Amino acid sequence: MTASVTVERKILSANERIASDLRTEFTRRGLLCLNFISSPGSGKTTLLERTLSGLPSETRAAVLTGDIQTDNDARRIARAGFPVKQISTGGTCHLDASMIARALDAWDLDDIDLLLIENVGNLVCPTSFDLGEDAKIVLLSVTEGDDKPEKYPGIYRRAALSLITKIDLLPYVDFDVALARAHAAQIHPGLPHIAMSCRTGEGFEAWHEWLMARRAAVSAAADEVQA
Amino acid sequence: MTASVTVERKILSANERIASDLRTEFTRRGLLCLNFISSPGSGKTTLLERTLSGLPSETRAAVLTGDIQTDNDARRIARAGFPVKQISTGGTCHLDASMIARALDAWDLDDIDLLLIENVGNLVCPTSFDLGEDAKIVLLSVTEGDDKPEKYPGIYRRAALSLITKIDLLPYVDFDVALARAHAAQIHPGLPHIAMSCRTGEGFEAWHEWLMARRAAVSAAADEVQA
Repeated sequence: MTASVTVERKILSANERIASDLRTEFTRRGLLCLNFISSPGSGKTTLLERTLSGLPSETRAAVLTGDIQTDNDARRIARAGFPVKQISTGGTCHLDASMIARALDAWDLDDIDLLLIENVGNLVCPTSFDLGEDAKIVLLSVTEGDDKPEKYPGIYRRAALSLITKIDLLPYVDFDVALARAHAAQIHPGLPHIAMSCRTGEGFEAWHEWLMARRAAVSAAADEVQA
Repeated sequence: MTASVTVERKILSANERIASDLRTEFTRRGLLCLNFISSPGSGKTTLLERTLSGLPSETRAAVLTGDIQTDNDARRIARAGFPVKQISTGGTCHLDASMIARALDAWDLDDIDLLLIENVGNLVCPTSFDLGEDAKIVLLSVTEGDDKPEKYPGIYRRAALSLITKIDLLPYVDFDVALARAHAAQIHPGLPHIAMSCRTGEGFEAWHEWLMARRAAVSAAADEVQA
C-alpha cells in the first residue's frame, strides 16, 4: 500500500497547488466561494434552488454542480436564472480543484461575486479535496440519524457551518438535534449549526444572515488588500 | 493522472485476487455472503438488527460492519446475539477484500453460514471493491430522492437486489417508488426491488423470502460441488 499512499499524497499536493491559486484569485476579487458537502439526498440542490431565488437581484451568483452522472441538478438550478455548469465526474467520487479551474475557464470572474459549488453526494471523499473555497458547508438531513457527525468526523472538523436539513420531518423520525450538535461539538467546538427546512422555510433567515455576513467579510478583506 | 490510474488498477487487481479467494472459500462451504451498500443513514444497521432478530434460531449468522470511525453499529448489532466485528477504516471510504480477510482470521468459518457485511456509508466508492460476496444489495431511503439510481448508476448496475427503505415516510416526502424503479431499470433491467419499512415491518416478508431463497441456492451449489 506504500506506493498508493505516495501517489495519493502527490495527487493531493497537486490539488493543493491549484486550490491555492484559485483561493488567491477569489480572495483578491472578494469573491465568496462555498463548497457544499453531504450524503446523496441531504438536500443540497434544493437548498441552492431556494437560496438563489431569495438572493437580492443585484447578486452576481454562479453555481458549479458535481455529479457522477446526469445533469439533472444543473437543469434544476438553472431555473433560478443564474449561470450554472454541471461537472460530470464520470465515476469519480469527489470534485477536485482542477475540475473547478477548468469549469471556470469559460466564465469571466469579473461577473461573479458568489460561487456556490455543490459537491458530489458523498460525506467522505470530497472532504479531503480543497477547491479553493472560503468555507466548506456540511449538510445533514434529520432522516440520516443524529450519530453521523461522530461517524464522519472529517467533514465536521473542516466545515465552517453545519446545516441540519429537512427539520419538517422531525415528527416522523428519531433524530435529536441537540444530540447531533453535541456530537459535532466534540469534533469541532464552536461549529455553528442552523436547523432548517427548505419546505417550510424555517431557518432560512439565519442561513441568509450567515451568507450575507460571510460575503461582507470576504468583500471587506479584498478592499483592504487593494487599499 | 496516468500514474494514479495505474496504481488504482494495481490496487483493484490485488483486491480482485483476495476477493476471488474469499469467494472460492465461501462457495465451497455454502456460506452466503452479502455486501450492503448505501449512503450514510439509509438504514443499513437497522435493517441488519431487524433481519438478525427475525432469523430462525439455528441460523449461524455473523456480521462485519465497516465505519470510518466509532463502533456504534457493532454495539447495536451485537444486541441481536450474533457474532459481530467492527472494521474501523480510519478514514478510508470503503471496505476492501483484505479488510474482510483479516477480520475473518479470528473466526472459524465452520461456524458461519450467513455473513452480512455492512459497508461504509457511501454510495460511490464501495461499489468498485469486490469483497468476495455472493451479492451486493443497495439500499435507498425514500428521503434521499427517486432520482438517485440515475445519479449513482455504478451500484445499481452491480447490485443483485434493491431495497427501498423507510417507506413509512412516503406521505411526508416527494418520492415516487415507480419512478425510482424505472430509473433503476434503465441501468439494470430486471433488478428486483423490495419497498420496505423497518419501523412498520412492511416488505419484510418479501425480504426474508429473498434471503432464504438465496441461502438455499448457495447451499445447493456447494452440495453439488461436493457430490
